[in-house]
Amino acid sequence: MQTFDNTTARSYLVRDVTVARWEQYAAADRMPFCSMWYTVPPGSSSPVDRHPELELSVVVTGSAVVEVDGRSTEVQPGHAFLLESDEPHVVHNRSTDKELVVFSAYWPPEAVGA
Amino acid sequence: MQTFDNTTARSYLVRDVTVARWEQYAAADRMPFCSMWYTVPPGSSSPVDRHPELELSVVVTGSAVVEVDGRSTEVQPGHAFLLESDEPHVVHNRSTDKELVVFSAYWPPEAVGA
Repeated sequence: MQTFDNTTARSYLVRDVTVARWEQYAAADRMPFCSMWYTVPPGSSSPVDRHPELELSVVVTGSAVVEVDGRSTEVQPGHAFLLESDEPHVVHNRSTDKELVVFSAYWPPEAVGA
Repeated sequence: MQTFDNTTARSYLVRDVTVARWEQYAAADRMPFCSMWYTVPPGSSSPVDRHPELELSVVVTGSAVVEVDGRSTEVQPGHAFLLESDEPHVVHNRSTDKELVVFSAYWPPEAVGA
């Protein structure tokens, strides 16, 4: 058994969003998906993102407002959201005082056997 | 974009642990892993579990004490733990008042290309 701590993971900033990708862990090679944590500070938003990979995100701290096609959906802690291939998305943290932390798994569409 | 709500998911009890497997969602067919949420009530523990699948768990609410080979490790909210193939494990919720909610992804070892 191995544990992974998002507060000590190696990370980098994309604007003010902290991204900690799991490629830093040798164990990632044994997972059939890529993964990361990302942290959006209070009152901030992720840049618009769009990628061929499907992305399943679990809200672990705070609450996310996910904007896709001009429609915003609130996703509570513990809940999850699945972004489709090439779906442009922005993740907002509307809280004034609480960080938003999300765990995401992502994979190319062809990773799932036809 | 699709959202998934652990509080309304169809679930069943394994002793007093509530298990909500993602097979209930059509979208699960497009993920290269299986997944579930499970909820351990305050002061309770999961039954001993052991399975060939590797299992990556993210603590989404509360704090987990994961027991493997008689060794207990506390896993904080937001942190994750990876259980190896066939590793017997018990997940304790040592809180007296707070539920423990875990999101788990699991896959057979052969799901990762050699």
